[in-house]
Amino acid sequence: MSDIDRNYAQTLMREAGLDGLALFQPESFRYAVGAPAGVATMWGRAGAAIALVPADASITLGAVASDHAAAAIRAAAPDLDLRTHRIWIDMLDLTGTASIDDINAAYVRSGRSGPRPETFDKAVAFQLLGDLLKERGLAGARIGVDLEFVPAVDFEALKKALPKVVWLDGSPILRRMRTIKSAREIIRLRRAALAAEAGLVRMAAAVKPQAALPDLSAAWKEGALGYATENGFALSGHWDFISVGQNLADMAATVSPGALIKADVGALVDGYSSDGARTFTYGPAPALALEIFKALEAAFACGLEQLRPGNSFCSVHNAMLSSMRRDGFSEYYRGHFGHSVGGAVGMEEWPFFSASNCEVIQPDMVVALEAPFYGQGLGALMIEDQFLITQTGYERMTTLPWTLRDLAEATSS
Amino acid sequence: MSDIDRNYAQTLMREAGLDGLALFQPESFRYAVGAPAGVATMWGRAGAAIALVPADASITLGAVASDHAAAAIRAAAPDLDLRTHRIWIDMLDLTGTASIDDINAAYVRSGRSGPRPETFDKAVAFQLLGDLLKERGLAGARIGVDLEFVPAVDFEALKKALPKVVWLDGSPILRRMRTIKSAREIIRLRRAALAAEAGLVRMAAAVKPQAALPDLSAAWKEGALGYATENGFALSGHWDFISVGQNLADMAATVSPGALIKADVGALVDGYSSDGARTFTYGPAPALALEIFKALEAAFACGLEQLRPGNSFCSVHNAMLSSMRRDGFSEYYRGHFGHSVGGAVGMEEWPFFSASNCEVIQPDMVVALEAPFYGQGLGALMIEDQFLITQTGYERMTTLPWTLRDLAEATSS
Repeated sequence: MSDIDRNYAQTLMREAGLDGLALFQPESFRYAVGAPAGVATMWGRAGAAIALVPADASITLGAVASDHAAAAIRAAAPDLDLRTHRIWIDMLDLTGTASIDDINAAYVRSGRSGPRPETFDKAVAFQLLGDLLKERGLAGARIGVDLEFVPAVDFEALKKALPKVVWLDGSPILRRMRTIKSAREIIRLRRAALAAEAGLVRMAAAVKPQAALPDLSAAWKEGALGYATENGFALSGHWDFISVGQNLADMAATVSPGALIKADVGALVDGYSSDGARTFTYGPAPALALEIFKALEAAFACGLEQLRPGNSFCSVHNAMLSSMRRDGFSEYYRGHFGHSVGGAVGMEEWPFFSASNCEVIQPDMVVALEAPFYGQGLGALMIEDQFLITQTGYERMTTLPWTLRDLAEATSS
Repeated sequence: MSDIDRNYAQTLMREAGLDGLALFQPESFRYAVGAPAGVATMWGRAGAAIALVPADASITLGAVASDHAAAAIRAAAPDLDLRTHRIWIDMLDLTGTASIDDINAAYVRSGRSGPRPETFDKAVAFQLLGDLLKERGLAGARIGVDLEFVPAVDFEALKKALPKVVWLDGSPILRRMRTIKSAREIIRLRRAALAAEAGLVRMAAAVKPQAALPDLSAAWKEGALGYATENGFALSGHWDFISVGQNLADMAATVSPGALIKADVGALVDGYSSDGARTFTYGPAPALALEIFKALEAAFACGLEQLRPGNSFCSVHNAMLSSMRRDGFSEYYRGHFGHSVGGAVGMEEWPFFSASNCEVIQPDMVVALEAPFYGQGLGALMIEDQFLITQTGYERMTTLPWTLRDLAEATSS
């Protein structure tokens, strides 16, 4: 099952004068097809897997993938028009075989015998894409490609392989399509955010004098993975940027009285990454830290006030930066105060809450809003949370308070 | 510290008519500079970090990276000629500040005030590369770029930004440079292989009736991470492809009598991935599985016989495939029977032991040799191990036997 809204995709492609999109990045393939692109994508080269999304929403999707990945793709997307190419891995159905002769016969019967390429053959994959285009009347069409991914040498090869196609950059359309999330994508991001939050709760419980950063990281991970297991899903990945105390570069730092503990973390569900952060102290924080945090809280609140459909991404940035200026921070700056979240290659997705990004906020976007302050010699402070944009405003996807919580107080109370 | 042998790089570049290499892939940057490329590379775009390797070994390396990554890079490579560009993250040294006014003054004093880009500004980064080239007399030189990575849109922008440079594809030279490992790279791959092996030992100990695949995966991970901790290093990552029983697609399979358990695993040290596999059974395996495994053992031995400096990669492939043919497998095929290992983007590195790859085996290469058989309905069988090529032959980097070990016997004895 695809996560693409074909009607929305049609509108965007028509506006841009595109007849279709050919997507080569593994994350884009998964988005278009609803199944993993397979192991042959490990080298970051184009051609191991390709998704073809015609602009005309009534024309079926097409895909090219390896014979090795085909079974998993067909199981996830039974109706997909899938063409396969051979890769280096030999795999055979041995059901009913009892001897080497049986095995040899099974190879021939299944059509799997014969030489295989060293890794995969992109020329073959490009020809299969050519077939899909031709059968859809798109042999000479204007096709957008994710050229923010496709390596320069591979794009040259593609142009030579299918010279009649008018190849254009489809990246801007693709990233705009991805901003509006499907119901399934929202579920993934909700689960991911709740798992990450459960990790933060577990991490906070592990904070005590002399607790080391790697232990807090392990506690976070345990909490996130545990939440997923308890709730019947799996994490496809996780990441954490945790700092403890004054030296932000000290990856072995331990908790001491008054230390700031900043945890910026994400859990992944089917490749979709959450993003959120909280800051704790152990014992009273320095007065300056409290003052900075108060300003971050005010900025975060000002950003939230702007977070509604119809407003622009830059209006959020401007509101947050103005708040910091009002609180006396005349030189503080951030390139962005947050971003979209999803299943693209980076954990931060376009559009960003930046001064220059005047993209419009829309329902079914999922975004992370962040107000960070990295002070070497004092510590890092940060509030970040994840929101679903609704018809009228936003819905917060987590529950943990945004305050600068003193965990020593929590222990003694 | 760079892992590049500048003299070897000079020879290769001279042969190819290149005056230098400009490397954009984060893994290539780390290889050239000896430090991580930084968080701004998360989107897979070119320009966040760039390493410049002049062909003339007497001309110093240059690099472009973000101001955020600079401290870590300078600590790892104090002599590097590093130019920095601003990214979205604001970070400040707050030592000696007690008020917001102090903070504002610290921004101005450090030169860190002023607007920052939404993410990073590749145009600025390209101009800094232009400066590095000009100062080295390479403003109109023939520069190889890792075009198997650089996205097509970014390469177009690079050509426009620095039009006097003759830009060429440097990927083939880069991958040849990377085949010969430095002493430090060999240490990483040795540590990684031993950690992975410790994981296999732990996994084998966890095999019992009804043990589920995720538990075996967890046991492997625990063993690998534990070995690293005990030996004073950290893993930068890990991966495992484990199968249990007849259905290779069943990710929740449990151990039952006679089941084949195949574990193809890798641990990463500083981004360098090991690669190795063993197969176990729980109780006597089916006769056909034993017969297949015997053929794999023979093929593996034939491959090893060819593994010495001066021989070609294809001679290894031919020896292994011929062995399978001699044992009656008339239709079995593999695109490659192994590959180089290292710190590049895929866990498998070029050159491959394939029929068409007649690259010559050389001392200080580190390779993985593999003999796999994936039989849906029977199970997966595989022998894979990692070898350092020496002056006269090879040195095995692990110790675990290659036999098809019956773990039920191990328990009862």
